[in-house]
Amino acid sequence: MLGQMQEQPLLVSQLLTHAELFHPTKRIITKTVEGHFHEYTYKDAAKRSKQLAQALIKLGVKKGDVVGTLAWNTYRHFECWYGISGMGGVLHTINPRLFPEQLNYIINHAEDSFLFLDTTFVPLLEALQSKLPKVKGYVIMTDQAHMPKTTLPNAICYDTLLDEQSGDYQWPELPEEQATSICYTSGTTGNPKGVVYTQRSSVLHSWALLSADVIGLNNAMRVLPIVPMFHANSWGLVYGCAMSGAEMILPGPHLDGANVCDMINRYQVNFSAAVPTVWTMLLQHLTNSGDKVESLESVLIGGSAVPKAMIQAFEKNYGVEVWHAWGMTELSPLGSVNKPQIGERELPYEQQLNIKAKQGRPPFGVQMKIVDDNNAPLPHDGIAFGRLLVKGPWIAKQYFKIDEPAVDADGWFDTGDVATIDATGNMQITDRSKDVIKSGGEWISSIDLENAAMGHDDVLEAAVIGVAHPKWEERPLLIVVAKDASNAPTTESIMTLLKDKVAKWWLPNGVEFVSKIPHTATGKINKVDLREQFKDYQFKD
Amino acid sequence: MLGQMQEQPLLVSQLLTHAELFHPTKRIITKTVEGHFHEYTYKDAAKRSKQLAQALIKLGVKKGDVVGTLAWNTYRHFECWYGISGMGGVLHTINPRLFPEQLNYIINHAEDSFLFLDTTFVPLLEALQSKLPKVKGYVIMTDQAHMPKTTLPNAICYDTLLDEQSGDYQWPELPEEQATSICYTSGTTGNPKGVVYTQRSSVLHSWALLSADVIGLNNAMRVLPIVPMFHANSWGLVYGCAMSGAEMILPGPHLDGANVCDMINRYQVNFSAAVPTVWTMLLQHLTNSGDKVESLESVLIGGSAVPKAMIQAFEKNYGVEVWHAWGMTELSPLGSVNKPQIGERELPYEQQLNIKAKQGRPPFGVQMKIVDDNNAPLPHDGIAFGRLLVKGPWIAKQYFKIDEPAVDADGWFDTGDVATIDATGNMQITDRSKDVIKSGGEWISSIDLENAAMGHDDVLEAAVIGVAHPKWEERPLLIVVAKDASNAPTTESIMTLLKDKVAKWWLPNGVEFVSKIPHTATGKINKVDLREQFKDYQFKD
Repeated sequence: MLGQMQEQPLLVSQLLTHAELFHPTKRIITKTVEGHFHEYTYKDAAKRSKQLAQALIKLGVKKGDVVGTLAWNTYRHFECWYGISGMGGVLHTINPRLFPEQLNYIINHAEDSFLFLDTTFVPLLEALQSKLPKVKGYVIMTDQAHMPKTTLPNAICYDTLLDEQSGDYQWPELPEEQATSICYTSGTTGNPKGVVYTQRSSVLHSWALLSADVIGLNNAMRVLPIVPMFHANSWGLVYGCAMSGAEMILPGPHLDGANVCDMINRYQVNFSAAVPTVWTMLLQHLTNSGDKVESLESVLIGGSAVPKAMIQAFEKNYGVEVWHAWGMTELSPLGSVNKPQIGERELPYEQQLNIKAKQGRPPFGVQMKIVDDNNAPLPHDGIAFGRLLVKGPWIAKQYFKIDEPAVDADGWFDTGDVATIDATGNMQITDRSKDVIKSGGEWISSIDLENAAMGHDDVLEAAVIGVAHPKWEERPLLIVVAKDASNAPTTESIMTLLKDKVAKWWLPNGVEFVSKIPHTATGKINKVDLREQFKDYQFKD
Repeated sequence: MLGQMQEQPLLVSQLLTHAELFHPTKRIITKTVEGHFHEYTYKDAAKRSKQLAQALIKLGVKKGDVVGTLAWNTYRHFECWYGISGMGGVLHTINPRLFPEQLNYIINHAEDSFLFLDTTFVPLLEALQSKLPKVKGYVIMTDQAHMPKTTLPNAICYDTLLDEQSGDYQWPELPEEQATSICYTSGTTGNPKGVVYTQRSSVLHSWALLSADVIGLNNAMRVLPIVPMFHANSWGLVYGCAMSGAEMILPGPHLDGANVCDMINRYQVNFSAAVPTVWTMLLQHLTNSGDKVESLESVLIGGSAVPKAMIQAFEKNYGVEVWHAWGMTELSPLGSVNKPQIGERELPYEQQLNIKAKQGRPPFGVQMKIVDDNNAPLPHDGIAFGRLLVKGPWIAKQYFKIDEPAVDADGWFDTGDVATIDATGNMQITDRSKDVIKSGGEWISSIDLENAAMGHDDVLEAAVIGVAHPKWEERPLLIVVAKDASNAPTTESIMTLLKDKVAKWWLPNGVEFVSKIPHTATGKINKVDLREQFKDYQFKD
């Protein structure tokens, strides 16, 4: 028996229409690429997004055509999000930090029909454009006065393009399975892979963000989304702010500590979201300048595990509550968030810190389980750790133009992470699946061993990899950079320290000293390189 | 171009599974029909709901079969919500306050296969059962020790039924358009009409409730849902609490002021929801007893317009913030909610009261507009008032077993209300469409006139209806009950008062004094009867 409710498709254009009608005076403020502040309302943004939709139609963009953006967080980029996806086009947010050959690859792979770019990225695309035969034109996101000289063919001024349109436009009713946008994720090997979001997934993900225990976006929030719109959908804030009527303060390219601090104080920002690197810059600025961020109430931090020292600095020195989150491009990106639960704020702070260091609970919509090598579910006891699998309506089932599914036969997506879940449902990432050491059918966390070794006073950096072992399949090898090469710690002193911190059967079978550990472009230990370097390593016992 | 996100159907069983896994220790507390307190967790509730699903299958209930409940807000009713809808059955929540002939009609119309009932309602159904040939059995929601003697055929003890099942059950994956439940709405004329919710609509509506600016349900809330599960879905709290991990305190049949006050204090309830009548009882109890409700932070009030005096009593005397809401059975039921927006709490209290008396903004998901008689949209200026139309994924498109659609050609549902929307998006109901007076192409609000007349010191009650007029189509007739019949106010004194409060062209063309104004079963002025009574009325001018 079917129900008899309206078959209203869920569309992102409705988010902007909702803000236009029910939060018409709420502001979107931008520190532009040119450096001045620009301020307008959701009502204004709705009109300009419609002008953009009309302009796209005039340029010949059809439903399903992909339109790329290389742009900072600005009001014009906000308009692209709604204008392109709202009229039925597919927004391709391009990360300008990719290598030129990766940019070349994804622009051609996605078949971008037009590229919208900030003036910042004109030189980058001038160098690339001869390899981009499918791009029909380059829309430069500025006004006529700031149009740069460029060798880009068919270069169009964004503001002029919009000014030619009336804004008298009705968003089309699209199927909710229609693609809204593509975001490429770059692994350590192979070509970047495209994740294709739907109208439905984008709206459902936004509802999750508004939930009180997730971000709780609301009309009293003044949100500074530092996480870029080209990085994992700015964690959903472009949609969530419109859905809730929260004000947005968009930082453009101005992400350094002094600028972020100035924007927080100037516009009384009370919530922001970014990766740890950005917060390190802000905290350093605050320490050096003595500036305060009194309006700031909470920050969402994700992208990598948040160091306890950072949590403590925010909470104890500046009264800013830290919400630890975890996600992936394939998850739209939200997978879990750790906001204090009832009773937690009353615990001793050390205990709170241990809880806050975990990645939190999934919002409703994300099904989550940890499993062993045979796909058997593991208990929620905070000890057992296994591969983290997820399922849900804003999680990828497939990558763009790749035939094989991205999920297993039961529809679960393997995150590539290894995690524990405790008895209260709080999840903690303990390792990457490919880095965990498989010893005699049991797993050993490389990250836990590294953290333990880093506790040694004479150790500058530590990495642990699994090395083949005739009896145990794999055993851990600890690789160490000494703080002072001329006075390196002894293997014994390191092993003595580890014995106190990890189970006996976790102890590394070997310790090697090196002058340098290789890193990836994003600053993580490059374990692929390390495994290659030590592939013929022989343990002594 | 289609997106590539998982086609995960949205199912209500997932709500309970989410609570079971990620809020396993959160409690559901019930003041039972028998009068003692029962306490268990979402984990326990999930197991028993699965036992119920197994029991239903054993009883022969198939997907799409309708199962009725006549029950108070208790943990067993909670289990019915998930057990029946989760296994693919259709939950029919029956309002026991309907007239026996209405009960008879809807049970047969819905084709209820089994009826689940509290012991309270055994006599009611014993009297009706001979007219209910399709009902295969009566499950009495109690344990073996409290089973009443009954003449009901095939009477089954609920707890015994569950105890026979293991709870080792996996919820089926259903299409999200599958019916979850039916709720009948009874107008003033004709048979009750059934609204059939879907799995999808129920989940989407729950997400809206979790939004910070709607209810903002969260894990720190202890919720007392006084609004019955048989009345407009308990405003969605059965689903929303599980989705958020909020604790529930279920009052059973104990809705009087003293009991409600006791439950609030005993379980430190911080949020509750009910119609004004219930709050009048609580406020009277508090005044008479001197009791306090210090844990209570906010109440959601809907079902009818909330008097300013009630808002003020809660907020000023007890520090409880009032959130005014509006909805209908056809809207699942949430249409709008009025939580203070940024800056409102800083206004002078009189001004706040004027804002709080409005019905608020629609949550994202409810599209809303006001239109004139030609369906042309009216401005959001707080002055223009028109028919209130809504559209959205948790709004009915059709009534159960009625062929014609419940919406217009563009998919809009006419709420039957007349409203204004102000420049900030705040909606206020000003009348019912059928009660508004249509004078020379313009509309006059009967409610505004009644409120103005009620301001007269000697008026006990006032009602305004439209009466046919040769020139103006309709003109208002004011009908008044004097406080003291032997000393009734003069027509002149009433008109003098009205002149200060309403536009001149709104002034009634006649005033009639009566000893009594007819009311409906729910206490509202019965304008159908009044219009009948005055159908031949002739104005003097």
